[in-house]
Amino acid sequence: MKSYKELSQSEMQEQLAASRKEYQQFVAKGLKLNMARGKPSPEQLDLSMPLLDTVTSQASADLLKEKTADDLRNYGGLVGLPETRKLMAGIMDVDVDDTIVCGNSSLNVMYDMVSQAHSCGIAGQTPWSKLEEPVKFLCPTPGYDRHFALTEHFGIEMISVPLNEDGPDMDMVEHYVTTDASVKGIWCVPKYSNPTGTTYSDSIVKRFAALSPAAKDFRIYWDNAYAVHDFNQPGQALLSLKDACIEAGNENIWYMFSSTSKITFAGSGISALAASPDNLAEIRNRLSLQTIGPDKLNQLRHALFLRDLDGVRAHMQKHAGIVAPKFETVLCALDKGLQGLDIGEWTRPKGGYFISFVGLPSTAKRVISLAKDAGMMLTDAGATYPYGDDAEDSNIRLAPTYPLVEELEDASELFVLCVKIASLEALLA
Amino acid sequence: MKSYKELSQSEMQEQLAASRKEYQQFVAKGLKLNMARGKPSPEQLDLSMPLLDTVTSQASADLLKEKTADDLRNYGGLVGLPETRKLMAGIMDVDVDDTIVCGNSSLNVMYDMVSQAHSCGIAGQTPWSKLEEPVKFLCPTPGYDRHFALTEHFGIEMISVPLNEDGPDMDMVEHYVTTDASVKGIWCVPKYSNPTGTTYSDSIVKRFAALSPAAKDFRIYWDNAYAVHDFNQPGQALLSLKDACIEAGNENIWYMFSSTSKITFAGSGISALAASPDNLAEIRNRLSLQTIGPDKLNQLRHALFLRDLDGVRAHMQKHAGIVAPKFETVLCALDKGLQGLDIGEWTRPKGGYFISFVGLPSTAKRVISLAKDAGMMLTDAGATYPYGDDAEDSNIRLAPTYPLVEELEDASELFVLCVKIASLEALLA
Repeated sequence: MKSYKELSQSEMQEQLAASRKEYQQFVAKGLKLNMARGKPSPEQLDLSMPLLDTVTSQASADLLKEKTADDLRNYGGLVGLPETRKLMAGIMDVDVDDTIVCGNSSLNVMYDMVSQAHSCGIAGQTPWSKLEEPVKFLCPTPGYDRHFALTEHFGIEMISVPLNEDGPDMDMVEHYVTTDASVKGIWCVPKYSNPTGTTYSDSIVKRFAALSPAAKDFRIYWDNAYAVHDFNQPGQALLSLKDACIEAGNENIWYMFSSTSKITFAGSGISALAASPDNLAEIRNRLSLQTIGPDKLNQLRHALFLRDLDGVRAHMQKHAGIVAPKFETVLCALDKGLQGLDIGEWTRPKGGYFISFVGLPSTAKRVISLAKDAGMMLTDAGATYPYGDDAEDSNIRLAPTYPLVEELEDASELFVLCVKIASLEALLA
Repeated sequence: MKSYKELSQSEMQEQLAASRKEYQQFVAKGLKLNMARGKPSPEQLDLSMPLLDTVTSQASADLLKEKTADDLRNYGGLVGLPETRKLMAGIMDVDVDDTIVCGNSSLNVMYDMVSQAHSCGIAGQTPWSKLEEPVKFLCPTPGYDRHFALTEHFGIEMISVPLNEDGPDMDMVEHYVTTDASVKGIWCVPKYSNPTGTTYSDSIVKRFAALSPAAKDFRIYWDNAYAVHDFNQPGQALLSLKDACIEAGNENIWYMFSSTSKITFAGSGISALAASPDNLAEIRNRLSLQTIGPDKLNQLRHALFLRDLDGVRAHMQKHAGIVAPKFETVLCALDKGLQGLDIGEWTRPKGGYFISFVGLPSTAKRVISLAKDAGMMLTDAGATYPYGDDAEDSNIRLAPTYPLVEELEDASELFVLCVKIASLEALLA
């Protein structure tokens, strides 16, 4: 196809009229489509239904006792069941002793980490709430809106760092982290990053591990949300941040987070964190004031259903069987409809939950609004940037997992039309 | 029996020798007893085993959808399932719209409330972390150690207020709350209070509702942990704090907390909070940053198993059938062994999880240490006071729910001996 940028004014007008006509046909259909939310589909959730049968009233007394714990139906077990810790350690690529298995939400675990630093400080440093200067966090962008929202909630200043194909712009990260003691953290989704699908390269992970922060309480907030969410086996490899940090003599610089929200049930899964012994001691101390322990029965369900990392991988292949064709559907439509037009680029993730689309400047809001008028919800423009502010107004996050394949065919075709219309309008303006 | 205070020195010596001899027989038995922890017994936990069969892989698609929510296995539903909110509203004696049903731990919910006030403030007031003067909380004592521990964690100064037979010393409460703007909260366990078993009288609840705080962000932290934990039906009545506050024109002064930890499974139950519309809006805003939602499948299990307040009451009568005889065992032994000796007083709760014993000054630590040496764990001395400091060293919390009745017979007899020995030692000193 001919690049739109090479079209004459009248050719553009012609194209625009044709696209608008096609668009009107979509509007007439009265569709209800949604590519906004990174939610597993009902079909994916069905994969985990046997989990609900693992712990019933017929469960033996033996099953309800762990070697190292009391009755699992009772209080206690602050750091989680040994078997579940082992399971989550496998997913996070750390040792059992590095882990604490928590409640149903890793977002909550991350929120608590920031909250603790804000209220009580990290490793004996001044609590962030007591500092004169505002604390700053680096935010690779485009990124995860909920990281940004919770950071803003605590009055933390966010600095955008471009996310390149192999990970964040490390020159910029190193500059900020080594020179500015008010920079206390960086949010990373290191594998199949939300929304680009980027997996950090080995050399990027090593540069993270080798950081020399100006702030003693600087931490890397490593949200490995899509650790095992590969479309094909083996998936993209992510170097162990923990091992790299130990090698670099930076033992305490990392916090790691994960969950089974997109492995078993979103909202009824389990979350986990991993950290160094010093960091864990501090976290455990806070946890002991905050709760008497996690839901051990739900942890037991997960340990019995998923068993170990091999069990998780086998289970995730079933997810991939559902999810990968949906990504294919959207990518095919984008290729077919937009390739060569020079009005957008999009990522081709090997796993995760999102495709990131970058269109011409000042078109994202218009695309999203056109889509909405035709009955399709997309993620809000700017959501993937701190303060909801995409300066270029060009990034759109596509979430293909929830709709049916048939719906995605309509949705992608409609999306292509919206991009064409918004781009032509921008080029003609 | 003759009061120890009327005994001559030599009579006391004689008694002490006799008690020590009996005590040595206990030591020789090599017992392993525990009256330290307010935990439900395995027999109590067995009562809720059918809850585990309410949501299985055979659950119909209908069951997994709420009218107002998406698929319950997926993300969403920040404030909890409608059916579960109704259930918890019944337990807390408030309306459905007043509630948010949360995760597995009401302690966590309370921690978060204090944390939010510390970081972000309440109702537009300065966050507590930004205040020059330390924030203060009133703590009716003896009280719940975990309230005190989390309060201390946030650097809040705790002021002990005596807990009388009908509730806290309200003259003192009113004095502090109305005159000191740094007093921001009071911890209350208003029914079958931990550890005394006290239920606040109507007039005390009304005085709470009528408080005129100096601080606009003063709140009553009403931890109704034992709302339905009656030994007999009907249990002690607790006036509705919410209704009383509305009547007094003090709509926003209260936060309420509850959980099913001691109704279904401790650690795998559900917790809830209730508050005024203004307060709830603020809490919901924070929650939306903190989590994508609670474990709705576990909420569904609870709604299906307990159904409604009548269902809860019927279920709690089964608990009472197990728990009440255990309290009887301990109270009988205390009556038999200590009545008339003038060396201690103890409460006779009509519900809840604890008996509070007050011995002679400077004897609690000694009693606990004697018990330990004979193989019995009791709650640490001072645990029921802020900073673990029982100035009188006289209060001991007894937790009769977990041990078997046979064990409690030994335990109570041993406890009586330890009290006799420590008291005689003190009187002779």
